[in-house]
Amino acid sequence: MILLKKYQEVRSHSLQLVEPLKTEDFVPQPVVDVSPPKWHLAHTTWFFEEMILSPNLSDYQVFHPRYRYVFNSYYESVGDRVARPHRGWMSRPTVEEVMEYRAYVDAHMQAFLQQEEQLSPEVRDLIELGLQHEQQHQELFWTDTKFTFSLNPLYPVYKQGGALLHQINEERGWLEQEGGMVDIGFEGEGFCFDNELNRHQAFLNPYRIRKDLVTNSDFMAFIEEDGYKRHEFWHSEGWDWVNQNERKAPLYWEKEGQDWVHFTMEGRVPVRREEILCHVNYYEAFAYAQWRGLRLPTEFEWEAAADLFAWGKRWEWTQSAYLPYPKYQKAAGAVGEYNGKFMVSQMVLRGASVATSPGHARKTYRNFFHPQLAWQFTGIRLAESL
Amino acid sequence: MILLKKYQEVRSHSLQLVEPLKTEDFVPQPVVDVSPPKWHLAHTTWFFEEMILSPNLSDYQVFHPRYRYVFNSYYESVGDRVARPHRGWMSRPTVEEVMEYRAYVDAHMQAFLQQEEQLSPEVRDLIELGLQHEQQHQELFWTDTKFTFSLNPLYPVYKQGGALLHQINEERGWLEQEGGMVDIGFEGEGFCFDNELNRHQAFLNPYRIRKDLVTNSDFMAFIEEDGYKRHEFWHSEGWDWVNQNERKAPLYWEKEGQDWVHFTMEGRVPVRREEILCHVNYYEAFAYAQWRGLRLPTEFEWEAAADLFAWGKRWEWTQSAYLPYPKYQKAAGAVGEYNGKFMVSQMVLRGASVATSPGHARKTYRNFFHPQLAWQFTGIRLAESL
Amino acid sequence: MILLKKYQEVRSHSLQLVEPLKTEDFVPQPVVDVSPPKWHLAHTTWFFEEMILSPNLSDYQVFHPRYRYVFNSYYESVGDRVARPHRGWMSRPTVEEVMEYRAYVDAHMQAFLQQEEQLSPEVRDLIELGLQHEQQHQELFWTDTKFTFSLNPLYPVYKQGGALLHQINEERGWLEQEGGMVDIGFEGEGFCFDNELNRHQAFLNPYRIRKDLVTNSDFMAFIEEDGYKRHEFWHSEGWDWVNQNERKAPLYWEKEGQDWVHFTMEGRVPVRREEILCHVNYYEAFAYAQWRGLRLPTEFEWEAAADLFAWGKRWEWTQSAYLPYPKYQKAAGAVGEYNGKFMVSQMVLRGASVATSPGHARKTYRNFFHPQLAWQFTGIRLAESL
Amino acid sequence: MILLKKYQEVRSHSLQLVEPLKTEDFVPQPVVDVSPPKWHLAHTTWFFEEMILSPNLSDYQVFHPRYRYVFNSYYESVGDRVARPHRGWMSRPTVEEVMEYRAYVDAHMQAFLQQEEQLSPEVRDLIELGLQHEQQHQELFWTDTKFTFSLNPLYPVYKQGGALLHQINEERGWLEQEGGMVDIGFEGEGFCFDNELNRHQAFLNPYRIRKDLVTNSDFMAFIEEDGYKRHEFWHSEGWDWVNQNERKAPLYWEKEGQDWVHFTMEGRVPVRREEILCHVNYYEAFAYAQWRGLRLPTEFEWEAAADLFAWGKRWEWTQSAYLPYPKYQKAAGAVGEYNGKFMVSQMVLRGASVATSPGHARKTYRNFFHPQLAWQFTGIRLAESL
Repeated sequence: MILLKKYQEVRSHSLQLVEPLKTEDFVPQPVVDVSPPKWHLAHTTWFFEEMILSPNLSDYQVFHPRYRYVFNSYYESVGDRVARPHRGWMSRPTVEEVMEYRAYVDAHMQAFLQQEEQLSPEVRDLIELGLQHEQQHQELFWTDTKFTFSLNPLYPVYKQGGALLHQINEERGWLEQEGGMVDIGFEGEGFCFDNELNRHQAFLNPYRIRKDLVTNSDFMAFIEEDGYKRHEFWHSEGWDWVNQNERKAPLYWEKEGQDWVHFTMEGRVPVRREEILCHVNYYEAFAYAQWRGLRLPTEFEWEAAADLFAWGKRWEWTQSAYLPYPKYQKAAGAVGEYNGKFMVSQMVLRGASVATSPGHARKTYRNFFHPQLAWQFTGIRLAESL
Repeated sequence: MILLKKYQEVRSHSLQLVEPLKTEDFVPQPVVDVSPPKWHLAHTTWFFEEMILSPNLSDYQVFHPRYRYVFNSYYESVGDRVARPHRGWMSRPTVEEVMEYRAYVDAHMQAFLQQEEQLSPEVRDLIELGLQHEQQHQELFWTDTKFTFSLNPLYPVYKQGGALLHQINEERGWLEQEGGMVDIGFEGEGFCFDNELNRHQAFLNPYRIRKDLVTNSDFMAFIEEDGYKRHEFWHSEGWDWVNQNERKAPLYWEKEGQDWVHFTMEGRVPVRREEILCHVNYYEAFAYAQWRGLRLPTEFEWEAAADLFAWGKRWEWTQSAYLPYPKYQKAAGAVGEYNGKFMVSQMVLRGASVATSPGHARKTYRNFFHPQLAWQFTGIRLAESL
Repeated sequence: MILLKKYQEVRSHSLQLVEPLKTEDFVPQPVVDVSPPKWHLAHTTWFFEEMILSPNLSDYQVFHPRYRYVFNSYYESVGDRVARPHRGWMSRPTVEEVMEYRAYVDAHMQAFLQQEEQLSPEVRDLIELGLQHEQQHQELFWTDTKFTFSLNPLYPVYKQGGALLHQINEERGWLEQEGGMVDIGFEGEGFCFDNELNRHQAFLNPYRIRKDLVTNSDFMAFIEEDGYKRHEFWHSEGWDWVNQNERKAPLYWEKEGQDWVHFTMEGRVPVRREEILCHVNYYEAFAYAQWRGLRLPTEFEWEAAADLFAWGKRWEWTQSAYLPYPKYQKAAGAVGEYNGKFMVSQMVLRGASVATSPGHARKTYRNFFHPQLAWQFTGIRLAESL
Repeated sequence: MILLKKYQEVRSHSLQLVEPLKTEDFVPQPVVDVSPPKWHLAHTTWFFEEMILSPNLSDYQVFHPRYRYVFNSYYESVGDRVARPHRGWMSRPTVEEVMEYRAYVDAHMQAFLQQEEQLSPEVRDLIELGLQHEQQHQELFWTDTKFTFSLNPLYPVYKQGGALLHQINEERGWLEQEGGMVDIGFEGEGFCFDNELNRHQAFLNPYRIRKDLVTNSDFMAFIEEDGYKRHEFWHSEGWDWVNQNERKAPLYWEKEGQDWVHFTMEGRVPVRREEILCHVNYYEAFAYAQWRGLRLPTEFEWEAAADLFAWGKRWEWTQSAYLPYPKYQKAAGAVGEYNGKFMVSQMVLRGASVATSPGHARKTYRNFFHPQLAWQFTGIRLAESL
């Protein structure tokens, strides 16, 4: 009954997360990348209905015949769907109806999981994938809700004490690595995504990597020394991004008189200098490293050294583009669309963040985002070739 | 206590209108022209706070210091405001908070209106303007909610029996008018908008005008005879609109097999042939008239004959651009921004619609919209020069 | 042989206009509204080939089978065409080939016009229309070339002494008009466009109108008194235009230290204070009038008084939207697309400009442009209701 | 005098390339990525003036004071410049003036190169870079001119026999590679770009790679088997690209009846089945490989095997993102902007093409383009992990 227990834990965690919200907070989608909380709750439920219940239970009745269309995200194999930018147009189903949808699917899933031992490995894997998928949306709930709240001139407070603030580095200094042949990719018993496979060998040149992440104080120095005004630190398209958006600081930061404040899930508060920097995009991470005369680590350098430093507070930008590992094979059918089709134009982030759900972190985990995005809880770890 | 009574009637009518909504329905803004119901409720309240209470009551405390910013629509004189396309980003204030805001302002306004007789004519006029303004937003509530619901693949039902459907023409035929000098513009005791002034003379050539409005059946014939495929009936920019948007029928219409259905506040229902056509834009109204070898009336022709035919079911497109009357003078200050600054690039509509609030119609009333818009309850009355 | 002579005059005038250009100047189209000179030369030629030669000469061979497609402007009746924004993509046909095309069509037209007396009135009218059409493109040549040159950091000089500069007012003061019934629209023997018909009566309230046009000096005062910074003078969409484009002065004006310079066909030269203002759009003309406490005349007020003041140096913005006259009837076929399909969303300009070709001005002439456009030689005449 | 001779050869090659053009062909820029031939000729000249003559000759007078602004491409260090999308707006300087500019700079450069032996290594390297730069623009001349011509409904012919057509594979079959440690990056005496350094070791897993490139015939099979209609072969953003642009075949291909024709520098001609495929973008290359159950090689796999197969006819898409090599160091100053700032969001191409200038190919050469671009002479070589 391990899977059942995990199912119940993950599913109830989603409900805990939205507990502080008002009904209205479940609706808006201010930009295309940011989905409404209501949508996250329903889409993760749709995954179980579409991928597990409908194919495996011959007499299963879907909760609502249109939800297949309304809550599909990007699975071409499943058919047409509400266009992504239109998720915020939908006031219905209501939050209450979405909760009924969750309860309905949960009831069927829990009955289904009673015979856990009789389930085929493929089905068990799919259920595990559904739970991992929901955990990813739990993190997106944080980032999306923070983004939407930040645009509101009333600066809504999610929950006092619930802002995921005040992370500091516990150790500092360089870690020297001699490189050579290393093993990369997932190995072992538990779950991993297909993009962590196949485990393979890679060769690393000697390098060193920081044990600590860049702090707010560090980054303020970059700003004060005109980091956002000097093109030589930036990629060409990063420099365009700076100028077109008139960027002068990380996302959510604003100058009030001489001081920096930033929007958080506890509202607008001063930026504490000693805390670990958050919400930079790849362009900013790269520019900061250039200014320091250093660089970001590759994802392999990161993975090879990950047992030797603390990680898990920020997703950490790497200098690696998101590409398939040797012999990468995507699955057949809809779940094959999970990772592989995004392997272009994105950069890899390693680690995990304060917003990552419990049990969802792994040193071989490969997160990925477009270089202009900073609404994840992202940070910077520096490296250098030796 | 006439003004007090009217205040109470108008304000409570707004609440009646939103009564069938779910909380979530108050939030979305799918396109820039369509505001969330929550915003309509708050903005109309803001008008009384900003224009009446704050200037006239020295000890008045605003309900919330940021609402001046959040709920200003387009009054440059009042200062900065939330950009219009961002109204749907705001989950807060909640509906409940907006209702508290209304109650707070209502309590102060009602106390203020106890001394109704002692109020200056200017203040009374402003209060009257505030009520007319709220009635305009009551109509916008209909049009905006219908538009947002129509985009939802679940086709929400506002209220059974509440769809403003089933209007038919009560009389038919031509009305011949010999023209000559006519008086145009508002005259009398009651309220009018500044754009209905000054009353002045105009000369009309002989014309005839229909007593009935174009029906669904009439318009189906236009569609069937390739009205949307023959450029010769359309303005150049109307033809571009047809092609860029692949339009083949009025807003909300869709073909199901051989039959037309349309989205209404009662969901998706068949188009009844005998009913009066609704939701055409100016381009469509013009093209239809061209196809018939007729034309739309000018706003003066309409006004001069309005006592002789039934009107009030559709806003009726005229062939007149929205321009000032002779000696038109806009008021000083923020209320001067009410009408005058929109007198370019829009067309005049005359009449009133089934969605117009009780007591808000007048034969000298000048409504105005851009030619591509059809989300109002608009229709077509034909005319011809003699 | 009157038509032949006029044909030769008009056609050779086009060639005189482009004589100072370099071959490269014939190619660019920097914005969609501005066509390449090469295109103007060929499109006006296409008109004669398509409308006169092909339909009337049974053995006529078109110069090039693809030119019908390449040089059609907006005639839906004639079929598909190169999309308007793509005119500047076409390096071919070369200028030389276009000149050969002109010579070929001219040779056939001149032969055709030998039997001038035997031509039907309809054909004669079409030829006349073709010549008027070419004259309109001669004026567009000025405005388009000026616009393109102005974007070049090298500030090309069209021709010394060829800049159409130095117009001043010859008289000043108000002209009072008692109004009443007036006759509007073309009457007489010569050519007019269909939009000048039918001649009809209109009633005017008493007004006065300036004998002089607004000067550069006048407009500098508007700028100095923050005319571009005070919303109260502007239409709502005019104010958006100001802010989105960061406009601070008329088109082609730039501040150099304390002085204004402007780009002209003689390059960049100081703005002379006493000269008549040029290159304002409708929003600017309206805002200027508002600031002065005056208004623009209607097109009927203008026409009724036009014999009493000097005009012809600027196209003058009126307060009238471009709409059909009573009993306006567009022609059948392609030439019916000449005027009528543009009668929405545009404002009427009256008069003529220094760039208007000789013999092309008429007091009943109705020019029209969208309110944001200022690349014509436009100016401001003020009026006031009495 | 080696450098002088090379200077003369490279510079005169540019002139040979443009020899078949008409003056008008030097002007248009239909899309932002495609620069006018005139601009290529002047910008490459600007490089020598700005980087060599001005800094090294104290009495050097620039040819024209504004050209520094007009012909800078993307060098932030050099200052402001004409915005890239506006290059096609500039009819001046004329082609003749650009030729005078070239002659002026050539005269000074040739005098300067008389003392070739006395030049510092840094200056010699910069001159060499300027020549390599000009060779890159020679290739861009081909691709840009082809693209512009292809948009012209008259289908201009560059030169009979000058279309770079009819390349076929000389050998076929798989080449097996056992992988292991390989040396990557430039080594030796001659010129290389900074992005080819530092030479370093990399580890390769066993793989095989094709000796031949994909042919038109191969790709037709992909089209016929619905390659452009089956999402499962495409990246998510590639699939969006297909649908938004309604792509059904490679760039320049069109179906005529049952046959494929394509636009070439010799006009529109049939696609020959046996020839090597050209003008696919990364999305298409990836999708084709997916359909075949194979993949693209990495750039290291390509380089490690490049001595064993024929290359040089197509730039070949690899599965590698464009990223810096270990210890990559960009140069100080403007030339440091040459490569490094583009190392994000682009894919590496290896090889060289039929449009590459003589002497410009190298097996360590790293070309790079955004994944949606296909106007280079690009092709597909397949690989597979063993």
